[in-house]
Amino acid sequence: MRAITVEPGHAHSARLEDWLEPPVSEGAILVRTLALGVCGTDRDILDGHYGSAPPGARRLVLGHESLGVVEEAPRGSGFVPGDRVVGIVRHPDPLPCPACAAGEWDMCRNGLYTERGIKARHGFGAERFRLEPEFAVKVDPALGLAAVLAEPASVVAKAWDHVEGIGRRSAAFAPRTLLVTGAGPIGLLAAMIGRQRGLAIHVLDRNREGPKPTLVRALGGTYHASPASLGERVFDVVMECTAATPVIVEAIARCAPAGIVCLVGVSSPGGRANFDIGGFNRTLVLNNAVIFGTVNANRRHYESALLALAKAERAWREALITRRVPLARWPQALVAAPGDIKVVIEFDG
Amino acid sequence: MRAITVEPGHAHSARLEDWLEPPVSEGAILVRTLALGVCGTDRDILDGHYGSAPPGARRLVLGHESLGVVEEAPRGSGFVPGDRVVGIVRHPDPLPCPACAAGEWDMCRNGLYTERGIKARHGFGAERFRLEPEFAVKVDPALGLAAVLAEPASVVAKAWDHVEGIGRRSAAFAPRTLLVTGAGPIGLLAAMIGRQRGLAIHVLDRNREGPKPTLVRALGGTYHASPASLGERVFDVVMECTAATPVIVEAIARCAPAGIVCLVGVSSPGGRANFDIGGFNRTLVLNNAVIFGTVNANRRHYESALLALAKAERAWREALITRRVPLARWPQALVAAPGDIKVVIEFDG
Repeated sequence: MRAITVEPGHAHSARLEDWLEPPVSEGAILVRTLALGVCGTDRDILDGHYGSAPPGARRLVLGHESLGVVEEAPRGSGFVPGDRVVGIVRHPDPLPCPACAAGEWDMCRNGLYTERGIKARHGFGAERFRLEPEFAVKVDPALGLAAVLAEPASVVAKAWDHVEGIGRRSAAFAPRTLLVTGAGPIGLLAAMIGRQRGLAIHVLDRNREGPKPTLVRALGGTYHASPASLGERVFDVVMECTAATPVIVEAIARCAPAGIVCLVGVSSPGGRANFDIGGFNRTLVLNNAVIFGTVNANRRHYESALLALAKAERAWREALITRRVPLARWPQALVAAPGDIKVVIEFDG
Repeated sequence: MRAITVEPGHAHSARLEDWLEPPVSEGAILVRTLALGVCGTDRDILDGHYGSAPPGARRLVLGHESLGVVEEAPRGSGFVPGDRVVGIVRHPDPLPCPACAAGEWDMCRNGLYTERGIKARHGFGAERFRLEPEFAVKVDPALGLAAVLAEPASVVAKAWDHVEGIGRRSAAFAPRTLLVTGAGPIGLLAAMIGRQRGLAIHVLDRNREGPKPTLVRALGGTYHASPASLGERVFDVVMECTAATPVIVEAIARCAPAGIVCLVGVSSPGGRANFDIGGFNRTLVLNNAVIFGTVNANRRHYESALLALAKAERAWREALITRRVPLARWPQALVAAPGDIKVVIEFDG
């Protein structure tokens, strides 16, 4: 079979190559790949900045945003051939930390987890992959190709789960306004779930044209192409999805009293700024404000993400996929193009 | 009667003066003051940096850390003469925000609250004051003078309440280690409650001598007189109680994966630093870390604070009060002296 592989730590080492069929040791369920979503983490790995191959291997099968169809599944696994599935990315270490042992590998405390297509475990960017049943999530075929959004949506579902968990420290928590910074897939999915929660939506991005403003307005939201457009507004919930230093500072400044800022983007270190730590501390304290970071997702979040995707307008969720690239032309998917939101590599084309 | 009053916004305007008896409009319960605790907020008000007088008044009765004995209370109020009480500091606006309406005036969202001795409402620094029953908290006489610690302890009880509320966003939350920065009254009370929760305690302060290291060790904790002494340690919970810029940066850097940093100190704005926002964001995201600020407390927190004080060793809690100053010599209480932890003005001396 063919697989997109990379030598982690080496830029420009990606290639589509003949690769061995996935061994049964990688999971009892055999899946034929339908589509693979591409995200910033994939580009970081391609640039040699991130990622690691499995122990003893030099190359890593890329890809962590999956959609496939079951070809073989053991009896009693809960899966049958023909089921559509996505794979869960993070796996706990065989000697799990207390969070991993509780099924919360997204909250791993000792860093010994592995991640498919990212860290020490092959990804889903091959014509076939295998899953253990506990890391396979069944998908409603009615979602179509949009089910490939399950993984990024799971990250957002976790972010919302934590916003609400943190909010519940106060009995009076009832957020009414949301600011999302960055109208990429994560930001738009965050706005989608915010809308489903009944919040008034504001999205800040640089693009003045293209599908982003349209998609925000289709949610009943307000699109802002500059911070000035936000005026003096502050927000009960702020979801920062750009990981860009000035936008992070802006997002923190836009937090309302008793508000919550959720950081979802993975920035590079070194984004230094002359920052008023005293004022930052003072505002957080006097406003009872929270800033938290979130990464990854556990099974519960994949499941709530799929429910949220199913609840969205079909045309809206499908419009998030702005380019489909056949496997044979895979390098095109890995180069960002104007107007891109989510780019997907199709394996069955 | 005599009262310590100040003209907010004017440095060095404090004086002990003859003052009218508190009017019944200030509350149905008449209280004779036993003691008044002094804190940094009082010093900020004395320096003219903070505080406001009640509407129409030029001067403010100072003081928000109270202890008194009921002299008169209406039948059915739940209080009788002879009861020891402390007063709750913050009062919601007559047109309360949703948090204030839910009894969570500590989470006020519109800023229209008032605070006794701080913001638009006379304080407890008079020979007698009045309380409405819903803002009076009964105190076990066995606590003695240490009951004057109820207000600062309520701030800490709220901080812990929120640490635990935020922690519960993850089923596996079970913190084991605590770092407290600053061994003033707030820091030591934070360590005391952390110890009661079963955490391993580390306290960072500058003082190498005096009562602070002794009080930390008496909790079974480890005292650190410099960040270097902490080595490479990170902590599940960090409580930052100094509000000093370099210590805030240190506190944030000491947060373990899935850890929580609680900011309790009110800093002045303008503490700028060349700060790695990119690294800050990246660490928060990849570690699922939380930073939050907390201020003030509601009735529930006063009650849990009093339980926590009662649970502490009598000698330990009494040792937090390092100076007692009779009312006649009140200015001495307002000047910090080496070895001070909590300084109290005694009204019945």
